[in-house]
Amino acid sequence: MRRTIIGVMGGCDGEPRTLEHAYELGKLIAARGWVLLNGGRPTGVMDASARGAREAGGLTIGVLFDGDREAASEHLDLVLPTGMGAARNVINVLASDVVVACRGQGGTLSEIALALRFGRPVVLLDFEPGASFLDACGPGAWRCVDTPAAATAAVADYLAELGRS
Amino acid sequence: MRRTIIGVMGGCDGEPRTLEHAYELGKLIAARGWVLLNGGRPTGVMDASARGAREAGGLTIGVLFDGDREAASEHLDLVLPTGMGAARNVINVLASDVVVACRGQGGTLSEIALALRFGRPVVLLDFEPGASFLDACGPGAWRCVDTPAAATAAVADYLAELGRS
Amino acid sequence: MRRTIIGVMGGCDGEPRTLEHAYELGKLIAARGWVLLNGGRPTGVMDASARGAREAGGLTIGVLFDGDREAASEHLDLVLPTGMGAARNVINVLASDVVVACRGQGGTLSEIALALRFGRPVVLLDFEPGASFLDACGPGAWRCVDTPAAATAAVADYLAELGRS
Amino acid sequence: MRRTIIGVMGGCDGEPRTLEHAYELGKLIAARGWVLLNGGRPTGVMDASARGAREAGGLTIGVLFDGDREAASEHLDLVLPTGMGAARNVINVLASDVVVACRGQGGTLSEIALALRFGRPVVLLDFEPGASFLDACGPGAWRCVDTPAAATAAVADYLAELGRS
Repeated sequence: MRRTIIGVMGGCDGEPRTLEHAYELGKLIAARGWVLLNGGRPTGVMDASARGAREAGGLTIGVLFDGDREAASEHLDLVLPTGMGAARNVINVLASDVVVACRGQGGTLSEIALALRFGRPVVLLDFEPGASFLDACGPGAWRCVDTPAAATAAVADYLAELGRS
Repeated sequence: MRRTIIGVMGGCDGEPRTLEHAYELGKLIAARGWVLLNGGRPTGVMDASARGAREAGGLTIGVLFDGDREAASEHLDLVLPTGMGAARNVINVLASDVVVACRGQGGTLSEIALALRFGRPVVLLDFEPGASFLDACGPGAWRCVDTPAAATAAVADYLAELGRS
Repeated sequence: MRRTIIGVMGGCDGEPRTLEHAYELGKLIAARGWVLLNGGRPTGVMDASARGAREAGGLTIGVLFDGDREAASEHLDLVLPTGMGAARNVINVLASDVVVACRGQGGTLSEIALALRFGRPVVLLDFEPGASFLDACGPGAWRCVDTPAAATAAVADYLAELGRS
Repeated sequence: MRRTIIGVMGGCDGEPRTLEHAYELGKLIAARGWVLLNGGRPTGVMDASARGAREAGGLTIGVLFDGDREAASEHLDLVLPTGMGAARNVINVLASDVVVACRGQGGTLSEIALALRFGRPVVLLDFEPGASFLDACGPGAWRCVDTPAAATAAVADYLAELGRS
């Protein structure tokens, strides 16, 4: 049976609190036995979440903006360079059972918009781009939370609704 | 010299006012001598804006979600099927000197987010997804307007800033 | 009615004969009133074919490997940066009514393979990758020719079969 | 450390011998501890190679043409829908340390061409599209073999040259 994939989105840089959140979230995702997928870069939320998941023994996948493996975080088990730039954001979304969005900029917001448009549930961790944006995006469900633990609980709820674990 | 391209984004369906706006906007874009680029489908904002531009003698390009030309609006001069789904949203943004966003859902919002992230100015026509979203997106500039005439004036302002006409 | 698009594929560099062929081919495509589409770079077959078509008054489109307009040939009317790398090869093929392949390497050969797989006729100009390759590719038709004039005649034949002009 | 990924390419259908080869190849790849990546469809070489790898306890990834998980082989651990059509062929190639090509058509041949263009070694299993094609493709190395065991040995040789195992 295919494994459950949780996508963790977020920026290339980030304030200490955001990176700490991403690291803790990675650990909690791995502890549940879920696969962590992100954009794979060696910086920011991508690197921190992969590091957390790896330290907790989880499986990590990075779908890279770049076409070169050298642009990948060292905390990834599976490195998929795409050379497709921001077009790979679509894969990040479609491959995820549930998407967790940490604080980011346009790239992250495009992923939230696509996730909701394609019906993927989104958990926003300490990041509130506004209900007028989120409501306009489409059929997916979303929830705002403040901590990695609350994000993980929200993911588990969405997975239960989807009949997955 | 390469021609100026104005991207018009928006949904597959739309209320009468939104479609009327898209049609008028297409006419005004063509009247200025700009090329109109959109997502190319035969419905909603895409079809209406292409129809307007064509009726005013403009050149129209559609970059399709689908891989099949049959999925294109009849009001396009140049049909580019991609078969890439939402990944083609990136091209719509990168190919445009300025992006005008009519009312839409997740697909349109992902294009706004990417445009601002890649530094393309965005004019929002009768569509306000919220300043907290727009400010978070990145370095691009944005402006909200109420009418196709105001949108066209805003596009002209942005082009002048870019040294284009 | 949508305009007929002829895709011209080929390498980033090329011997003088190949570049001369590409330039002449561009002129002949424009003289027939067809739109020329290529990969848009400012070098090799891309630059030469766009230059020829432009000098003969034709419309030229480039679908770029890069995400940056600065990477485009100056002989293009319409520049579409994709930032998608080789994934944009698919668009070059799907957007063309007929594909003409000048001498190239793996990128060009991937475009020939995709064109034949998706049923686009291919004219090979002074470039013979072997019948065992071409026959294996799929349902599209192909023909090898030696000169730009013969390539143009072959394109016209294929368009007639497709009911286009 | 990132895991070694072997890409297995091939058609959606296939003669019994080709499917048997793909199945055996999948088993041998898994037995070496390599990850198997393919195009993920529930038919042909994709399904057979994933089934073989899974039965031998290996990890399997599918990068889908389609945007819908329902279009995936049941023998995949990790399903990445892309909705990008043939554009995902680029990912299959870039993500692989070595590519093994079973018999296929245009899609498979486009992957061989891209692999050689981007410097990925290619092992051709009972599939000979001709040296004139292969030599023209670019800097990657290639070798033709007759059996899954010989393919696996060739992959191991290429990995050793790359300093991987």
